[in-house]
Amino acid sequence: MSSSLALVLLMLTFHNASAELFTALADMEELLETESVLIANLDNYIRVQEDKLNQLRRRSAEYQREHTEAAKDVGTYLSNPVNAFLLTKRLTTDWREVENLMSYDVGSEFLENVTNYRDVLKFPSDEDLNGAAVALMRLQDTYKLDTASVARGELNGIQYSTEMTAGDCFELGRQTYLNGDYYHTVLWMREAMDRLSHEVNRTTTKADVLEYLAFSTFKQGNVHTALLMTNELLELVPDHERAVGNKVYYEKELEKEAMQKALRGDDGSVDVPVDTTTVSS
Amino acid sequence: MSSSLALVLLMLTFHNASAELFTALADMEELLETESVLIANLDNYIRVQEDKLNQLRRRSAEYQREHTEAAKDVGTYLSNPVNAFLLTKRLTTDWREVENLMSYDVGSEFLENVTNYRDVLKFPSDEDLNGAAVALMRLQDTYKLDTASVARGELNGIQYSTEMTAGDCFELGRQTYLNGDYYHTVLWMREAMDRLSHEVNRTTTKADVLEYLAFSTFKQGNVHTALLMTNELLELVPDHERAVGNKVYYEKELEKEAMQKALRGDDGSVDVPVDTTTVSS
Repeated sequence: MSSSLALVLLMLTFHNASAELFTALADMEELLETESVLIANLDNYIRVQEDKLNQLRRRSAEYQREHTEAAKDVGTYLSNPVNAFLLTKRLTTDWREVENLMSYDVGSEFLENVTNYRDVLKFPSDEDLNGAAVALMRLQDTYKLDTASVARGELNGIQYSTEMTAGDCFELGRQTYLNGDYYHTVLWMREAMDRLSHEVNRTTTKADVLEYLAFSTFKQGNVHTALLMTNELLELVPDHERAVGNKVYYEKELEKEAMQKALRGDDGSVDVPVDTTTVSS
Repeated sequence: MSSSLALVLLMLTFHNASAELFTALADMEELLETESVLIANLDNYIRVQEDKLNQLRRRSAEYQREHTEAAKDVGTYLSNPVNAFLLTKRLTTDWREVENLMSYDVGSEFLENVTNYRDVLKFPSDEDLNGAAVALMRLQDTYKLDTASVARGELNGIQYSTEMTAGDCFELGRQTYLNGDYYHTVLWMREAMDRLSHEVNRTTTKADVLEYLAFSTFKQGNVHTALLMTNELLELVPDHERAVGNKVYYEKELEKEAMQKALRGDDGSVDVPVDTTTVSS
């Protein structure tokens, strides 16, 4: 299958899949409009905060310069009437201005916008997010797409969408987890872990990924690996409540497994892999 | 008088003057310690705010990059299942993170410090500021120091302290104004105005300086110049309440002056300058 044909098929498939989620493409276009408004508002917020910080930075630099000068020889510095006046001024009128500037809540209108937008703009729901994840997984299965390639936004070596971050892969895995689809959770959490190790500005945490990965691995029947992952998680977060509980549980499961093996060995039966999926849902 | 001798004399004079204000140099050294704490706290506040802004900037750049990509061809973009998932994710989980980050009040502990410092650190009072201004004016008079030179921090061409900003000169003028010393107010407000015209990051406003300058000039007996300055102020701030009232008052004063002149002319008396200081306090 040529990559361009694959792309067309993929899009057609998805178009059908997305039709279940959104009554029309127009709905999704509205989401892009929402995003456009949110970005503009965020940038305005950043701009006014930046202005405030620039003023404070200038003040700090002035204070610091003068203070360094004074520290060289405190006695001489303070004997000078101009310096004495300026120091007194810095700690009265000037400092009150700095205090006011620090406590002045700039950008509050943009924060209010954020709340108001929820009522006036179209936002996708958590169900929409889950639906989009399901559609993507269905597509991955249908075309037997390799997880790493999908994450790179590649199809047969051709870039057809943005590369996903570790956080994107994590969220995809989290959505399939919510649906009880542990097979895809393991695939995407592994991908998240792999991407995370290369990220400078990390978009998720190793602990979060390990938690989902360990439990889904257990649900897929691999108790031993699940225990190793849980131990790794506990090294990062020693008081992780669920991990502490799971560790105890996994260890008991492995003991049971070992006993079953031993029993079978005693009565001369063959050493078969134990189906631990009986403990899963 | 050599500049070094002048400097010694100046310092001795000031040392006596400052002795009235602060029981010991140690008191002023404490002020420097206060300043040191304030600067460190301000820098901490700036640092955490900067961290927050950097995170938001990174988010905005990511959103913008992806949004620009989508805008190129909305239909094709949204037909792609990875893009559809990522857009839905951006507007659900990601956007909630941005919202939380925007509304998260970072640096509040440093703002609280600012309030607490008032109780635990030594701060100069407004009276100390006034005293430091009086001491400086006394020195200027005693040594007949030129205002512009003092403002440059120069004595006989030698730099002996920091250069003053327009805001520093304004505050000095404001302090002498509060003492009813309009002579020095005019000197220092003029200096403030002169420095203001060269400042990139203005440390006071032309309107503020003009208000004090006009009124002090009137108090010094020059009603005509006071009116010109008030008109200049009203060009900047047309609804300036006090300026509107003063303008009417100055115009009436000038009318009275003109009538007095005319009367003297009528009875053949010589045309002498009218002493308008009779209207001042």
